[in-house]
Amino acid sequence: MPDYQAPVKDMLFVLNELTGLDQIAGLPGFEEATPDLVAAVLEEAAQFASEVIGPVNTIGDASGTRVENGQVFVADEFKVAYQQFVAHGWGGVSQSTGAGGQGLPHTVGLAVEEMWQSASLAWSLCPLLTHGAARAIEMHGDESLRGLVLEKMVSGEWTGAMNLTEAQAGSDLAAIRSQAVADGDGYRITGQKIFITWGDHDMTDNVIHLVLARLPDAPPGVMGLSMFAVPKRQINADGSVGQPNNVTAVSVEHKLGINGSPTCVMAFEKSYGYLIGAPNQGLRCMFTMMNDARLSVGLEGVAISERAYQQALAYAKERVQGRAASQDDAVTIIHHPDVRRMLMTMKSYIEAMRSSAYVTSASLDRAQRETDKAAKAAAQARVDLMTPIVKGWSTEVGQVLTSIGLQIHGGMGYIEETGAAQYLRDGRITTIYEGTTGIQAADLVGRKILRDKGRALRALIADVRSTDAELAEYGKELKVIRAALAVALEDLVSATDWLFANHSRSVDVPGAVSFNLLMLMGTLAGGWQMARAAAAAAAHLSDGNADKGFYEAKIITARFYAEQVMPVVGAYRKAIESGSDTIMALTEDQF
Amino acid sequence: MPDYQAPVKDMLFVLNELTGLDQIAGLPGFEEATPDLVAAVLEEAAQFASEVIGPVNTIGDASGTRVENGQVFVADEFKVAYQQFVAHGWGGVSQSTGAGGQGLPHTVGLAVEEMWQSASLAWSLCPLLTHGAARAIEMHGDESLRGLVLEKMVSGEWTGAMNLTEAQAGSDLAAIRSQAVADGDGYRITGQKIFITWGDHDMTDNVIHLVLARLPDAPPGVMGLSMFAVPKRQINADGSVGQPNNVTAVSVEHKLGINGSPTCVMAFEKSYGYLIGAPNQGLRCMFTMMNDARLSVGLEGVAISERAYQQALAYAKERVQGRAASQDDAVTIIHHPDVRRMLMTMKSYIEAMRSSAYVTSASLDRAQRETDKAAKAAAQARVDLMTPIVKGWSTEVGQVLTSIGLQIHGGMGYIEETGAAQYLRDGRITTIYEGTTGIQAADLVGRKILRDKGRALRALIADVRSTDAELAEYGKELKVIRAALAVALEDLVSATDWLFANHSRSVDVPGAVSFNLLMLMGTLAGGWQMARAAAAAAAHLSDGNADKGFYEAKIITARFYAEQVMPVVGAYRKAIESGSDTIMALTEDQF
Repeated sequence: MPDYQAPVKDMLFVLNELTGLDQIAGLPGFEEATPDLVAAVLEEAAQFASEVIGPVNTIGDASGTRVENGQVFVADEFKVAYQQFVAHGWGGVSQSTGAGGQGLPHTVGLAVEEMWQSASLAWSLCPLLTHGAARAIEMHGDESLRGLVLEKMVSGEWTGAMNLTEAQAGSDLAAIRSQAVADGDGYRITGQKIFITWGDHDMTDNVIHLVLARLPDAPPGVMGLSMFAVPKRQINADGSVGQPNNVTAVSVEHKLGINGSPTCVMAFEKSYGYLIGAPNQGLRCMFTMMNDARLSVGLEGVAISERAYQQALAYAKERVQGRAASQDDAVTIIHHPDVRRMLMTMKSYIEAMRSSAYVTSASLDRAQRETDKAAKAAAQARVDLMTPIVKGWSTEVGQVLTSIGLQIHGGMGYIEETGAAQYLRDGRITTIYEGTTGIQAADLVGRKILRDKGRALRALIADVRSTDAELAEYGKELKVIRAALAVALEDLVSATDWLFANHSRSVDVPGAVSFNLLMLMGTLAGGWQMARAAAAAAAHLSDGNADKGFYEAKIITARFYAEQVMPVVGAYRKAIESGSDTIMALTEDQF
Repeated sequence: MPDYQAPVKDMLFVLNELTGLDQIAGLPGFEEATPDLVAAVLEEAAQFASEVIGPVNTIGDASGTRVENGQVFVADEFKVAYQQFVAHGWGGVSQSTGAGGQGLPHTVGLAVEEMWQSASLAWSLCPLLTHGAARAIEMHGDESLRGLVLEKMVSGEWTGAMNLTEAQAGSDLAAIRSQAVADGDGYRITGQKIFITWGDHDMTDNVIHLVLARLPDAPPGVMGLSMFAVPKRQINADGSVGQPNNVTAVSVEHKLGINGSPTCVMAFEKSYGYLIGAPNQGLRCMFTMMNDARLSVGLEGVAISERAYQQALAYAKERVQGRAASQDDAVTIIHHPDVRRMLMTMKSYIEAMRSSAYVTSASLDRAQRETDKAAKAAAQARVDLMTPIVKGWSTEVGQVLTSIGLQIHGGMGYIEETGAAQYLRDGRITTIYEGTTGIQAADLVGRKILRDKGRALRALIADVRSTDAELAEYGKELKVIRAALAVALEDLVSATDWLFANHSRSVDVPGAVSFNLLMLMGTLAGGWQMARAAAAAAAHLSDGNADKGFYEAKIITARFYAEQVMPVVGAYRKAIESGSDTIMALTEDQF
């Protein structure tokens, strides 16, 4: 199986041409993010990903994890890779310098994170969750807690975990039952949590659990949830690791994939904890973690597809089978049009998804650092709108692409040793955790479009529309791309006009159309970035840029996306405009 | 995990209303196939499937298979279920009475086969391959070979296996190298075959291998392949099992799924074999096996989706989570519109795929038994056209549906104990074996449409069009369905007109558009049967038929398919009419 090689060139193209990284580098605190530094960071990360993380991926899958006396053990190779990760300071690329991080923009951090995810999805979940937990503590924790844990979490010396789900409370956090009672300066937390990714392990001395629980007399529902930091081992006043804190891994799950990462049932029994933020404000803290994590999980759809693509491409270039229509000799299968169709489908979707994720992350950087209030608000509105789309669409498409990657291998793809099946198995979790696609779609339609009265949506539509003039400059070359974008945009306008006209007709309409609208917007948003990429490539070509092959491929790939992928937008529109009637019509017995 | 319950009611609806089983029962030799007998056979098979086969499915997945000294061992529970299968005579439902079968139409056999597949895909592959091998021997073997093995294969006392693939020869049979030399009345076969499903096991005394190999001086390529029956143990003149025949299982593969079934590397070393058919006519014999098997593998897409649907439906009716838009209390998740959308997607596709498969099988019965020459030829042309569609489309859709089934379970779906992941893993092979989807698509476009000069295609188009009048009778009720079918049919006409006008423009056009055309035709063919089902249901309702709930559900489900599924046909059309340019444009380095 070929090693993972990070697509640094494409990443830099997206960062430099599509995210407006030069403007982001002009925001306060991001001055260091010069093109040269960013390129150097990406090159170094690429080397680390391929040399240190990539090689442990199949090992973790084969060895899995085990629990003994409440303690989880992971593959030794995972541990070694993690220790090198910490030693190299990779934990803090985009975390604030105040917390010991490198302080680069999220947009750059996302490109680096994509590499860890591609190299080993299971392994990369540990830094992902640690990063999210550290950010929640940085933003909502008090000074004493920050002083106690933040630096160690940013460096990765200690890891973090998110403890939300309980057996009766999956997507529905209102049903959470874990309890917290005050004890001196802190609290005692009792409860059981399930599906806790990297909830316990033997890679570090301590794990900081962020736990949602209820204080006595808390109101029912989500407004009665508070967030606590509960360390696996108590923390002494000098910051050293103290006694065990009654935080126990009860068991680890036997899963379809991401077998190198422990998914734990965690038990807390009067475990000492620190309140984060105000009482009953746990949901707010959680969303800080969750929104970051949702963008990162959306990125996992890109990352796992990229890894699957690299392996399928290597196989297609090597495997000799059958004759091409134009030749007599047996050829490598990349010569067969249907294999090329599959590879182009993977390549074009991956580029579309990568650009959408990075561009959304650029809005996150702007939302946090813009000094102009209107620009800041507009950026935040764009992040809010796009986060469920990036999460839902990229991971749904990831299912299709990892499956295509396996298909390109023929029978070999079904054999575990080949490795293609692992990407399918690993990637299958991404549409589920951090909120299922259904939850993302409900968030998009309910909060981000209807409750917002379509403001952020209209801003997006206006931005997409303004790209048309840019495309028109390049005439015939981008004609097909321009036409496809215009048609898809009208489909979006029509579908959302329909939604606003009909959502109050039945309470079921928003939920019934939400998935199709999320997929429509994802496909269109991807097509928008592909069109922008094609225009940027055309500009370079007309400047006589030396790298002709790369820029020509950009335009061809964007055209493929326009011709072969974008037409599905019309199908989503028709499904949406059919409404909820047939979706809701059957009685339970009629199913 | 809920037991499998065969959907006998829907199966009988399809058989009686859509396949024209009453006419088939009028064909010579099928007189026994009365509605009462067919219903009784299906009820009995359903009981056997749920009580005997279903329970061994997860056991086989967990225990897998192993090889010791050239002999494969499978789960004991698989063996017990197989012995009961033979004892009950289930092996010969649709095999000819002359060979010891029950002589029922293939169409009925297919419904029964769907049950074995749903109950345990891995287990069901053994009867599937045995059936195909027996039919090839019945049609092409000489009297002495038939006398020696046929009855035992039809009863299932001995099983059969297809030995085609070699390491260098997957889809490309021309590259096969196995050798055969004459020896007395028979031949000695030497070679190594890979990916041999149920190539060896300990369930029966003997395994009859159908092996493609080359005689000395055979021409190169596929025209130099001959077919041999090579028993695992030699057969004595009295039909009893004799000495080992140097047929060795070298290893079994570690696969993504169907772990209960052995996938073997088989070695033949001067193994005694019987020539089937004339020298160098192996391909013809193989296609007899293969075409049957392709229809059956297409059915696997239906069967595994049905099993996934039943489990997801049971979970959706039981799992309490979140509030419905219209209620304050927590509800079971089947109340959520997006969960319903997923369930309806599964239900409607499954019904569409099942009808398409059964109706195609009805054409197979007609092709074999019609006495009128034109009717016989028309039926054969329809089978030839539809077989790659049923195989390719149903298995591709199966990937989507088993994935949705898992998704409905949320986080639980990713845990292996839940069972939903096994259907995804097991079903993933179906787009690969018996010819990948790419091979099916090439067969469809190359042989079944272009080489046929569109004759069979036009006959299909005419038949679909004639359904319009039937739909018109029911006016408003079926209006949406009628409109969707008409639009999709015009998409097919347009796409195939484009193909005929453009296929000679570039040698790459047929291959580049083949997948999309296969998917277009599958979606449309399914929609056609859904429309016919709706019309039949409307007729029953207007007759005041008692089973109102069932027939109303049929119409609603057909409308859902028309509204939510059929629009994708337009997207396939646009992709096709974009041609091959962007698919073929990149150099290898540009990928």
